[in-house]
Order: sequence, then C-alpha cells, then structure tokens
Amino acid sequence: MRTIGKREVEDMAVGAAVLASGGGGDPYIGKLMALQAIDEYGPFQMISLDELPDDAFVCASHMLGAPTVLVEKVPNGMEGVGAVDALEKRLGRKFDAIMPLEAGGLNSLLPFQVAAAKGVPIVDCDGMGRAFPELRHVTWTLFDIPACPAVVCDEKGDVVTVEAVDNAWAERLSRNAAITTGGSVFMADYAMTGAQAKKASIPGTSTYCEQIGRAIREAHEQNVDPLPVILDLLGAFELFRGKLDDVARRTEGGFVRGYAHFAGIDDYAGRECELRFQNEHLLAKSGDEVLCSAPDLIAVLDIETALPITTEGMKYGARGVVIGIPVHEHWRSERGLEIAGPRYFGYDIDFVPVEERVVESANEQ
Amino acid sequence: MRTIGKREVEDMAVGAAVLASGGGGDPYIGKLMALQAIDEYGPFQMISLDELPDDAFVCASHMLGAPTVLVEKVPNGMEGVGAVDALEKRLGRKFDAIMPLEAGGLNSLLPFQVAAAKGVPIVDCDGMGRAFPELRHVTWTLFDIPACPAVVCDEKGDVVTVEAVDNAWAERLSRNAAITTGGSVFMADYAMTGAQAKKASIPGTSTYCEQIGRAIREAHEQNVDPLPVILDLLGAFELFRGKLDDVARRTEGGFVRGYAHFAGIDDYAGRECELRFQNEHLLAKSGDEVLCSAPDLIAVLDIETALPITTEGMKYGARGVVIGIPVHEHWRSERGLEIAGPRYFGYDIDFVPVEERVVESANEQ
Repeated sequence: MRTIGKREVEDMAVGAAVLASGGGGDPYIGKLMALQAIDEYGPFQMISLDELPDDAFVCASHMLGAPTVLVEKVPNGMEGVGAVDALEKRLGRKFDAIMPLEAGGLNSLLPFQVAAAKGVPIVDCDGMGRAFPELRHVTWTLFDIPACPAVVCDEKGDVVTVEAVDNAWAERLSRNAAITTGGSVFMADYAMTGAQAKKASIPGTSTYCEQIGRAIREAHEQNVDPLPVILDLLGAFELFRGKLDDVARRTEGGFVRGYAHFAGIDDYAGRECELRFQNEHLLAKSGDEVLCSAPDLIAVLDIETALPITTEGMKYGARGVVIGIPVHEHWRSERGLEIAGPRYFGYDIDFVPVEERVVESANEQ
Repeated sequence: MRTIGKREVEDMAVGAAVLASGGGGDPYIGKLMALQAIDEYGPFQMISLDELPDDAFVCASHMLGAPTVLVEKVPNGMEGVGAVDALEKRLGRKFDAIMPLEAGGLNSLLPFQVAAAKGVPIVDCDGMGRAFPELRHVTWTLFDIPACPAVVCDEKGDVVTVEAVDNAWAERLSRNAAITTGGSVFMADYAMTGAQAKKASIPGTSTYCEQIGRAIREAHEQNVDPLPVILDLLGAFELFRGKLDDVARRTEGGFVRGYAHFAGIDDYAGRECELRFQNEHLLAKSGDEVLCSAPDLIAVLDIETALPITTEGMKYGARGVVIGIPVHEHWRSERGLEIAGPRYFGYDIDFVPVEERVVESANEQ
C-alpha cells in the first residue's frame, strides 16, 4: 500500500500522457479532477498487483469516447462512481479495488478519484500499458477475460448495461452509446478476480507513469535536457524532429481520426514525417519508410519541455520530437498483433519492432 | 379469455397492417412467424384488459428498427423471448401477460408468439392504437409510465439493458443499439401493473385488427368492394386515389424515411398527392393542401384488394387509395400532439383532425 498525494498525481498525469501515445485524454483535466478528489477524500491509496488477494474482486473504471469531446464536455466527477455502483448492483457484489483501463492523461487518474469515492484502493496496473483506441484493446482480452457486463453512464444519469457476445461487440455497443449521449461516457467493466488481474494485467503502470513525469520535472528543475533522460527511462528511440505544418482531425464514430505532418528540423532538415492517428498515434512514416507502428508506442514530445502533446492538442507550428517506445511483450504475441497490430487499424504492413526498424534505418543511411 | 387460431391470425395480420399506417413491419413475415408458433404451442390465449388483474405484472414485446431491414433480417423467433427473460431477470419478477407495443403487420403478432413461448396470455390492447416511429410514442408515455428498464436483444445473443432518464433517451439509446447490431432488434420494456395497463393502454386493439382483416376477407369472399366496408368500420375517409409514380426511401438513423407521389386517377385525375413517411406515413398533401397528418392515421390500400401497402412495400405503378383514419383521442390531447403531432416530426403545420380537414376540403370544392 502506497499513498499518492498531489505531487505524485502531477507527475503521473505527465507520464501517463507520454505512455498514452497521443490519446487517453487531456492530462490537465485529469490532473484537476484528481487534485480536487484529494482535497475531498485525502491522499489516494494504491496497492500493487502482488498485494491484491487472489479472491479479491476488481473492475476497470474509465471514460470512453473521443478526446476532442472530453475537452469540452468536462465530467462532473461522479459519473464514474455511478458506473461502478451500477456494475456492483448488477453483479450483486462489491469491488475490493479499482483498476485503470489504460495509461492516459485522463484515464490514468479518473479511476483514482472513483476508488477514493468508493473507499477502496486503486491497483498499480492497467490493461494496456499504453492507450489504445478501443475498449477491447486490453491484455485482459488476450487472456479471454470478458469486458461484460459493461456499464455505460453519462452525465445526465442514463445507464446502459451491455452484455455482449464478445469484447468486440462490447466495444461497438458501448461506443455507440457514447456517440448517442454526446461523444463520451463513463464506464465500469472487466470485473475479475485478483488472480485473473495478476495474470492478465500490465503491472506497475501508475508507478511507471509517475517515474516518467518525475524524470521530466526533475530535469527541468536541474536545467538538464529532459529528452535523453526520458528516452533512457523508456528504452525509447528518437524517430524524428520537426515542425508541425499540417494537422487534420475529424471526430467520427466516437473517435478522433486524422494525421499530422512534420517538416524536419536540425538533423532531419529536408525530410518529412507523417503520423496517422485514431485517438492514439498508430503509424509514423517518413516518405515510404515506416518509422514505427502499433502496437509499439508513438509519442510526440514538445521539443523544449519534453512534455507530451496529445492528438487533440497538436497545433500548427508546434515543434516536436517523435519518439518510438517498445510495447509490452503481451502485445507482440500473435494474438496481440491480431487485435492491435497495424493491419487491424487498416495499414497494410507487417509489424516490425521499433528497435529493429531503428537499426535497419541506421544501416541504410 | 379467447383462443386465437390460424384464421384469426391471418385476419389480424391484415388489419394490423391497415392500422400500422404504412409501418409496423411486413404482415407476411408476422403471419408466418405466428402460424409457426401455433403449430408449436397450440392456439394463442388472449385476455381483455378487463380480465387483467390490477396487481398483474405485464410488459410490452416488440421489434425496433427499420422495416426495410426486417424484410431481409428475418428473426429466428426466440430473440423476443430472450428479451422478456432478461427483463424478468433484471426486475426479479415474472410477467403474468404480454402486451403488443403497437399495431403492425409484425409488431402485432410477434408478442403472441413470445407470450405463447412464455406460457402466458397476450393482452388485447396496445400502446399506440396504430404504429408510430419511436419507442416513446405510446399512450403509456402520456401517462408517465417509463419505458425503462428496457432490454434490447439481437439475433447473435447480445443483450443491452437501457435505464434512461426518460422515454426520449430510452428511444435514442435503444435505436442506436439497433443500428449498431444491424438495423433491427427485439425488445421488452414498459413493465407495469395491470392497473396501469388498464388506465393507459388502447383497449381491444388485436380484436379490432382482426375485425378489419375479416371484413376485407369476407368482402372478397362475397365479391363485394371491400373499400366502403373498411371505411365504414374504421370511421375513415377516402383522401385520394392514384397511381404511384415516384417513391424514395432511405434507411438512415434506424428508420426508413422517404416520400411517395401519386398521380390522381378516376375522380382525382389531374391532381396529385404526396405522402411523407418515417417508417409510418405522417403527412398527406395534395399540392399545398394538407389532407391528413399525424397523429391521425394515413394508410395506402391497394385499389383492387383493399389490402394495405407498407412504406417499404410501395412500388412504382401501384394503384392505391389513400385513406385517413381518426386516431384515438389520447393522441389528440395537448401532450399527445406534443410528442406525436406534425411539428414533432418536422412539419410546420397545426394539427387539424382529419374529419375537419375533409369537411373543409369539400366546402372549398
């Protein structure tokens, strides 16, 4: 059991936005909600996966929808609690702890608030180790743990309980409920035992997020360039440096889809880089060369501050470093690539680990 | 208690399609499903609203979606039972009887099959006295009876339970679940007591449908023109006779929307008539003159057979009689017109009862 105060929350929001790969919601809103919850409930209680008893009963708590909508449809904070309450009622059993679904500026921190309001600890883990576009894109799916019953709540008080035949249909039905009620909803789902959570979750995600955010903060405090520190901590690779000269986004089907185009600067002058995203960055290319693809992580960090830039926050003229981060090995399995590899998202390329792509690219130059 | 056999079912399917105002699903599919259910379970048991005990527990059973889809996505017959089972489970109580939601070729008969499979009687009533596009368009809404919890089932086995803040949101959330799963779903909703059903339902709808169908059949058997018989039975008015020379339909948002244009024949030669529909016919005009509008019923009957033509069954060259039928007085109340009057459906006209429009029109000519 560890206590999470305001300093930890601030670091975590930044680190989560790095792992969010451009998605997962605005870290500023997530941070404000979490800080307010600490004022109300006191510091958060976090336990590790190891501390979770095998017979404990846990669920995931998160928002679902288009991040562009979340920026304007700011949550009142209690919708997430309503979703967990409804799921407990449906299952006739209380949850002993709450888990984040994914790493993300908002979705990493929202469950802390929900856990605090419910008076239970948060578990230091998540179901992605990053952010992904769909509800089914969790390692829990890889271990055949059903999302359903999945409860969807909106800010008005509508509650929709989805009991789908599989996690793909759970995603479609929940996403459409989100679209119907205005683009974003709060959910509670993936109810499971402690034993299942230990086997199928990515461990230590919140602590990892905090470490990343702290490293960036401390580099700033010590007037050190934060980027090499971050790359080292993440085992990540610098893929490109450029100035954002084109970005297109559309909010459709409950996602934000689009692309961002960077013109190279410094060592990359004369080259270009294009990112394709669906809530999260999924593909980075320079001309015909693929730099990195899902399920590996692609993040854009501000060239001065190394702070992450979300897909909905990208603006013309921003100077960014595009980095590639190797994803957790669960996602590089055959089944992982089947549901979260480049072909799933419509890109007709094979997955090649980012560390191999970087070596290939260096050899060619 | 009355027994409903195959002859009654055949008549009822025809009469229900007349009251369906062009919507409510294909009577042929509804009839086939009901006849098959009689082979399996024996004749249906139907009770009147008066026979329903005040403390009985009843719900509505129906399909929701675009009739164009229903023609191709033929139900397996047990999805409706699954919806009622799930609603019973959710409420922790068995239903003593089942009610149709609306009059319609399919939605009048499907609940008979569901009731038979559940081993309970059907109640001789409905929530509309006609067909309307939306789930909320029931007299039960006028009496503040909630649709929720409303259970949505599809043919694959997905179950979505909607607990919305009001019947308008119940409609939106259910409709979008229908769209997500392919355009049509089976539902169980509007759980209520016998006392509530007696106060807020339209009584005797199934028997009325049967009378209408029988009148058409007997007129055929006796080589009598069925149309005057039908107009007399319904208290309805002939509005137009014409040849269908243009029809446009699109399936969007879980509805079939479009218009049909008739060129006048016989006494109507040289005039034209246009119908606007959203699953059901909602507006009939001749030039600038409104002939009839929702909530009054507009039906198109084949000029030879007086058999009703559904909105999805209208074809170029069909010769039809357009008739207007005064709706149940519940719908002519202020609240009834608010949720089912012409302005609700986007037509900027006041509601005038069809019997008054006919007199005005006669005086002008």
